[in-house]
Amino acid sequence: MNKHSHRLMDTTTASRTNISVSPISRFKIALCQLRVTNDKANNLNRARNMLEEAANKGAKLVVLPEMWLCPYSHEYFEKCGEELNTEESSATYHMLSEISSIHQITIVGGSIPERRNGQMYNTCCVFGPDGKLKAKHSKLHLFDYYEASGDVSFRESDSFTAGDTPTIVHTDVGCIGIGICHDIRFPELGMLYRAKGADLIIYPAAFNMSTGMALWELETKARAIDNQMFVAVCSPSRDSAGSYTIWGHSMLVGPSGEVKAKAEHGEEIVFAEINYAENQLQSLPEVMAVGALEGMRNMLPVTQ
Amino acid sequence: MNKHSHRLMDTTTASRTNISVSPISRFKIALCQLRVTNDKANNLNRARNMLEEAANKGAKLVVLPEMWLCPYSHEYFEKCGEELNTEESSATYHMLSEISSIHQITIVGGSIPERRNGQMYNTCCVFGPDGKLKAKHSKLHLFDYYEASGDVSFRESDSFTAGDTPTIVHTDVGCIGIGICHDIRFPELGMLYRAKGADLIIYPAAFNMSTGMALWELETKARAIDNQMFVAVCSPSRDSAGSYTIWGHSMLVGPSGEVKAKAEHGEEIVFAEINYAENQLQSLPEVMAVGALEGMRNMLPVTQ
Repeated sequence: MNKHSHRLMDTTTASRTNISVSPISRFKIALCQLRVTNDKANNLNRARNMLEEAANKGAKLVVLPEMWLCPYSHEYFEKCGEELNTEESSATYHMLSEISSIHQITIVGGSIPERRNGQMYNTCCVFGPDGKLKAKHSKLHLFDYYEASGDVSFRESDSFTAGDTPTIVHTDVGCIGIGICHDIRFPELGMLYRAKGADLIIYPAAFNMSTGMALWELETKARAIDNQMFVAVCSPSRDSAGSYTIWGHSMLVGPSGEVKAKAEHGEEIVFAEINYAENQLQSLPEVMAVGALEGMRNMLPVTQ
Repeated sequence: MNKHSHRLMDTTTASRTNISVSPISRFKIALCQLRVTNDKANNLNRARNMLEEAANKGAKLVVLPEMWLCPYSHEYFEKCGEELNTEESSATYHMLSEISSIHQITIVGGSIPERRNGQMYNTCCVFGPDGKLKAKHSKLHLFDYYEASGDVSFRESDSFTAGDTPTIVHTDVGCIGIGICHDIRFPELGMLYRAKGADLIIYPAAFNMSTGMALWELETKARAIDNQMFVAVCSPSRDSAGSYTIWGHSMLVGPSGEVKAKAEHGEEIVFAEINYAENQLQSLPEVMAVGALEGMRNMLPVTQ
């Protein structure tokens, strides 16, 4: 699947002079497990600092968590939402664009509440080292959650409209498929990204304590093994503001399901090396992925 | 998905008199983690004894492991293969048919080497409480395995031809999707079974020590969570004969990924209760499964 040559990380000169180069296939990724406060300006400023710290420590791809601009609650979604365009009103757009350009990094900008056409979306922006927006992904599978006890419920669909488009983006650090949080529960999205040539899938996410304990690491490993490729998940820290208690544990998992690096639940940056050559060590039977499912659906007999 | 009424287990009278009844939705399953020896007749006899013990202890659905008739090695596949038909030559067919009929149970008969049309398949037979063959599933994804070190390799395809048909079977204990071992690695097969109305997926399997440690429980849970339904895996015991060392750990996992019952690596029968009502506790977004993947494939934009 992976056609990259296996060049090492030193593309510094080329990228500084904006010469177009092939994607690098071996580089440092950073997952910023940001602590989210009630103060939007503070979050924006601290996200900027974390992105800069990650870049200064050599990361070429830096990831923010789901919903890092404000606490995970309906009132803040409304209060902190932005239009995510080049207008001055989108402080987030400008910060991400500026930092990616200054530090010549690719940023997968977690997610924030996006206002668009009179509706609100849970949206991730990807910026390239030239500071330009390369892709936007709006969460496809909203999380409407009820605990069996009935004590806990949270309906994302009360605030957000679901996106309707998978997002795969060619960057200077490879071809990346984007999902947000609950999107990880759906194997077909990852399979689709693999079938379309992704090297890596990134899910900014914010699992809660119940789903975090039961599913966070399991789902991350499952998607990696399903597709035999790197998968990263990036969460806010547990001590973030708001009533929704977050699991944390941002991590990078390799193509055999092995944990490459993992945070605990506090605020920290997780660094790890990605080498896409590892995606090729195991080759899958040809029957894998989209074609197989399509074929199977047509030929299924129901034995009575 | 699950349209069964939630009747309790007591359908004894109806099934003893062969009155056609709706599938029961709550019953005891038994997973026979058989020790496999070099002696085919001995394996056949001990499998019979385990099936009878499971039935006598109240199991309505009894499962055998992958390749229980002979050790997992090429010479034995050739030596012990059967045609799996009603002729006298198929001792396995006759034993499974007889035991299912005597004890009025459904048997998912693990797998044995099947001779068919001059080729060999790794095949599972399902028998109903009337002693009739209800379905045969031949392993779809053969396991050609190389350790990175190059020290260990095993090519199933040296002996077997891959099946080409998924198998879903309506039984007295619900609608069951069948996979064999490596079939569990492919999410699309489980998703297909769910889309077609399965209540339960059963994978007779024989993971080795490396893949067992890394993937056995993870894959079983992943397929359960992908489809929010019960998944059972049934393995031979580790002290089975042959050079291929087997992981063991037969288990039943519930629809939220929780382990319901699990063996260690020795010879034993795992008993657990299945209640299909649990498959319904969490409802999936409608976008799930086949339709979603199909839709996604058509609409994917590649952002450059």
